[in-house]
Amino acid sequence: MQQIFITGAAGFIGSNLADRLLADGKTVVGWDNFSTGQRKFLDGALKNKNFKLIEGDNLDLPALTKAMVGCDTVFHLAANADVRFGLEHPSKDLQQNTVATFNVLEAMRANGIKRIAFSSTGSVYGESAVIPTPEDAPFPIQTSLYAASKVSGEGMISSYCEGFKFEGYIFRFVSILGERYTHGHVFDFYKQLLEHPDRLKVLGDGTQRKSYLYVQDCVSAMLHVINQGTAKNAKHGVEIYNLGNDEYVQVNDSIGFICGALGLKPKMEYTGGNRGWVGDNPFIFLATKKIQSTGWKTSLTIEQGISRTLQWLQQNQWVYESRSHK
Amino acid sequence: MQQIFITGAAGFIGSNLADRLLADGKTVVGWDNFSTGQRKFLDGALKNKNFKLIEGDNLDLPALTKAMVGCDTVFHLAANADVRFGLEHPSKDLQQNTVATFNVLEAMRANGIKRIAFSSTGSVYGESAVIPTPEDAPFPIQTSLYAASKVSGEGMISSYCEGFKFEGYIFRFVSILGERYTHGHVFDFYKQLLEHPDRLKVLGDGTQRKSYLYVQDCVSAMLHVINQGTAKNAKHGVEIYNLGNDEYVQVNDSIGFICGALGLKPKMEYTGGNRGWVGDNPFIFLATKKIQSTGWKTSLTIEQGISRTLQWLQQNQWVYESRSHK
Repeated sequence: MQQIFITGAAGFIGSNLADRLLADGKTVVGWDNFSTGQRKFLDGALKNKNFKLIEGDNLDLPALTKAMVGCDTVFHLAANADVRFGLEHPSKDLQQNTVATFNVLEAMRANGIKRIAFSSTGSVYGESAVIPTPEDAPFPIQTSLYAASKVSGEGMISSYCEGFKFEGYIFRFVSILGERYTHGHVFDFYKQLLEHPDRLKVLGDGTQRKSYLYVQDCVSAMLHVINQGTAKNAKHGVEIYNLGNDEYVQVNDSIGFICGALGLKPKMEYTGGNRGWVGDNPFIFLATKKIQSTGWKTSLTIEQGISRTLQWLQQNQWVYESRSHK
Repeated sequence: MQQIFITGAAGFIGSNLADRLLADGKTVVGWDNFSTGQRKFLDGALKNKNFKLIEGDNLDLPALTKAMVGCDTVFHLAANADVRFGLEHPSKDLQQNTVATFNVLEAMRANGIKRIAFSSTGSVYGESAVIPTPEDAPFPIQTSLYAASKVSGEGMISSYCEGFKFEGYIFRFVSILGERYTHGHVFDFYKQLLEHPDRLKVLGDGTQRKSYLYVQDCVSAMLHVINQGTAKNAKHGVEIYNLGNDEYVQVNDSIGFICGALGLKPKMEYTGGNRGWVGDNPFIFLATKKIQSTGWKTSLTIEQGISRTLQWLQQNQWVYESRSHK
């Protein structure tokens, strides 16, 4: 792994990954359509001679193919990550996730690039009856278009691993937190509290249980197994790993951490029900035994991750202007 | 279920389903792009005043939406079913299966149609370690683009069931046999034996174990559960059923049935290995307890199904001229 192509390089995880790879002395080609990515996240990378930024969209296959020339590994992180609003624009997940992933695979094939890492999601397990949910949980029923599109991406990637001898690393993420976080419950809650510190609207009843992982831990985990080359010896050329924390919190716990750090006691306004939105899963907690058995472990607890995220948002309130949520 | 829309109506299963529904007094709108469908399969249906044929492609969303007007149920059977040749044209499964299924769902939504039946495949289980394989087998790794595209279709359908309150019936088929069969091992073997009765080339070593279901049993099973309305009370509005026989045979057994019926003793030429092609699964046997628990059962054994198929091919050798395999 010397010259690495990152789709979604100006995004939350992509830009953190780019910085890490550059610090490790790698050459990085960043690819982003800037639909949600932030140029500012690449300020550091752009100062590095080993970084090249190419602006483009995954739906433009010829441009994508050309941009990948010379790379040996692709991190495919670009995606429509609007889980909540999938029903408002059903074609978005199909185009930006499913078709985009197909294009990434075809661009790789055209360039003879075989190693791919893919950001999937713990949402692919639907409402699993097995918690913590392992990678080989019962074949799930999809409940969101977002997760369905990620399952579709996983399936194409593993088929390319089988059929075209690709080396695939599929990571099913819990929600990721940390520096450059621009999307999710901490983002939403802090935004509300900036606007009206005396009240907080919460989707659902606040009892939803979720697990979160710090972005630097997420990046470390991916690099850890790819450097070990675990997929090379896998039966179908692909390895699938849950990436998460070995603990979970309730939304209400998280609210407690946030309000405590800010010294606020807002009036809570719950929309009610045990789901935040249609397709929301009231309990997401992934088994992380497989990734931990490779020797990787987390550096921050969920509470520490939330605290780190909040600090970053406090210092970077510009993200609220440049990126309206949704 | 009174006015039924069938995609792939001129296909093997679609045309048999149309005939059955018409015999039951239903109104049927048949939709086909005739890429592999046969007009001749609809000879009977076209004589029935309750049948309307509309020629069109699932990728033409406006035409598809218009064609569905007035229907209350959609059987989405149209697909690229070229499992073996997926690697030669990877975009075909994406377009004809994944994108096509999305269009069917969107056309339904535009028309306020909520009930959908979908032909998925036992191949979605990949190389399952659990045999017979139940619907809730461990989350599989996809090994073919065809199966990956069916998983994608399943995921979108179940998401529409959850998000838009659709009523979904997903059927994971084993290989289907019987009248109007134009694709698969009996088709290929008989074709070879017509051309050179003294020798038979077999992909793999002939020990692949597969299960087969007679097309009339397949049609009966689908109608049986839809008439019971099982998905109406399902947790996410969708029910998934394996459709198969409660027995399996080796490819070599099947060759024995075929050669016995034809009175031939060809010299066998095996290509070797336990797979017929990349992505082939050496053992497909689905658990059918769930569909059987609804009261449905098969009428023919696999041997009887193969015999019936062979008789039909002998009487309809025109299919070899009109449809070159692949």
